[in-house]
Amino acid sequence: PAGKSADYVNTGTWAKKAFSEAKIVGKARLAGSVEEADGTCKRIPKASELDWDASAAYAHICSNNTIMGTQFHEFPDTGAVPLICDMSSDILWKPIDVSKFGLIYAGAQKNIGPSGVTLVIAKKSLIEAGREDIPKIFRYKEHAKENSLLNTAPTFAIYMMRNVLQIVKEQGGLPAMEKRNREKGALIYGLLDESSSFFRGPVEKESRSFMNPVFRLPSEALEEKMVSDAKKAGFVGIKGHRSVGGIRISQYNAVTVEQVAKFVEFAKGFAKANG
Amino acid sequence: PAGKSADYVNTGTWAKKAFSEAKIVGKARLAGSVEEADGTCKRIPKASELDWDASAAYAHICSNNTIMGTQFHEFPDTGAVPLICDMSSDILWKPIDVSKFGLIYAGAQKNIGPSGVTLVIAKKSLIEAGREDIPKIFRYKEHAKENSLLNTAPTFAIYMMRNVLQIVKEQGGLPAMEKRNREKGALIYGLLDESSSFFRGPVEKESRSFMNPVFRLPSEALEEKMVSDAKKAGFVGIKGHRSVGGIRISQYNAVTVEQVAKFVEFAKGFAKANG
Repeated sequence: PAGKSADYVNTGTWAKKAFSEAKIVGKARLAGSVEEADGTCKRIPKASELDWDASAAYAHICSNNTIMGTQFHEFPDTGAVPLICDMSSDILWKPIDVSKFGLIYAGAQKNIGPSGVTLVIAKKSLIEAGREDIPKIFRYKEHAKENSLLNTAPTFAIYMMRNVLQIVKEQGGLPAMEKRNREKGALIYGLLDESSSFFRGPVEKESRSFMNPVFRLPSEALEEKMVSDAKKAGFVGIKGHRSVGGIRISQYNAVTVEQVAKFVEFAKGFAKANG
Repeated sequence: PAGKSADYVNTGTWAKKAFSEAKIVGKARLAGSVEEADGTCKRIPKASELDWDASAAYAHICSNNTIMGTQFHEFPDTGAVPLICDMSSDILWKPIDVSKFGLIYAGAQKNIGPSGVTLVIAKKSLIEAGREDIPKIFRYKEHAKENSLLNTAPTFAIYMMRNVLQIVKEQGGLPAMEKRNREKGALIYGLLDESSSFFRGPVEKESRSFMNPVFRLPSEALEEKMVSDAKKAGFVGIKGHRSVGGIRISQYNAVTVEQVAKFVEFAKGFAKANG
């Protein structure tokens, strides 16, 4: 609102875009950034590095940074300032205490369902206080008032989300998802730690993402060869985002432990043959 | 843009909402309205009734009014002012000369495919001149620059749109759709004209919608009975919008001439039994 500012933390591409968009409709400031000179972010900032504005309207973070391969494993304490979190790429990866957040938003297209719908969990008091000089479609209060039917709802995406949530429940819910995701993470990061002369993980250990482990090979030529060999072996989509290069293993909830284990086996063979 | 105003025409619920939203982000004025004291609109305004601002940034109309059952059958001449048209509920109903419009937008969920995606056809010069102080997601220029991949695309809805367009092509394209839609319109409006003592069409003849014919029965009790009897006979969704009441026959491209003919037969029987 007028006279207020919002705090943002730059931990990667999407966090930065959120900050840049916020500046268009209001006043926003950076409470912290871990962006390096080459544009990459290799870690999540420590609590002591974050300079929160105690009078901010809200504080915004992005919990998982798909391109950088980093993830918040402890959420910052912003005191009385409502914490807003973009969980698009890691919601449902494990149980989360939603009461700690003023608002959580998540584009469905990773762990919830197909693209085309966004889940929002918000404190009523926060959205009630929202600005009324912005388009109605941007006012969460209006969406809540209309039971999420302010606009014509994307029915197929919602139907698929219902099905995915049902499957997650049947498979043991979020505790089971967390167990599975930690096993997958242990497999991939085990590989990086054991073969660090060949697979170089740029991300600080405590900031590693369980959704998108990233790593580099000794040369870009080898990275290209790995992407191509992997494709022949049945592993697709392992190329890192074009803005940072390297290899990225997206292992969202739908990816099984067995699939990751098979990839790790393939990667070990690749290292042996090309290392 | 600053210092400019946009013209809107109120022909019903959606046209009015567009006007109301425009006033939030800029200056907007009504070039005409056919809203009556009871909130309904029974016709499309004549060219002579529209008071266009020759210096407007654009002029906005809604080509088909689903709730009121009216439709533009001749598009207004706005001279040098770009005409923007919401064709959400009647795009693809017949061939349209898109070159006459500055911008056309259409939510897919009627004639193009499932809900969750919007088609936009725009003059490059118009979108290039768009404001840059609004959220990026609202700037058509940015969407065009990124080949419609500014945001994560709703892939399933786009895939279905591709399939629907393919089917429309296979069935003879838009000339075939127009022929079919005019036949459907002739059937329903034939019923209203022949049995006008029982089926009362509130809409002026020249403004009748080929997508959503609406009519009233002698009493609300009979309207309720018709909805209920129709359901038993296999016709669903014929209840008029709650804001206006009555009966509404939505006959988008996917509805066949045969289906409408069967409904008309049912309606004649209903009139005979209850008239």
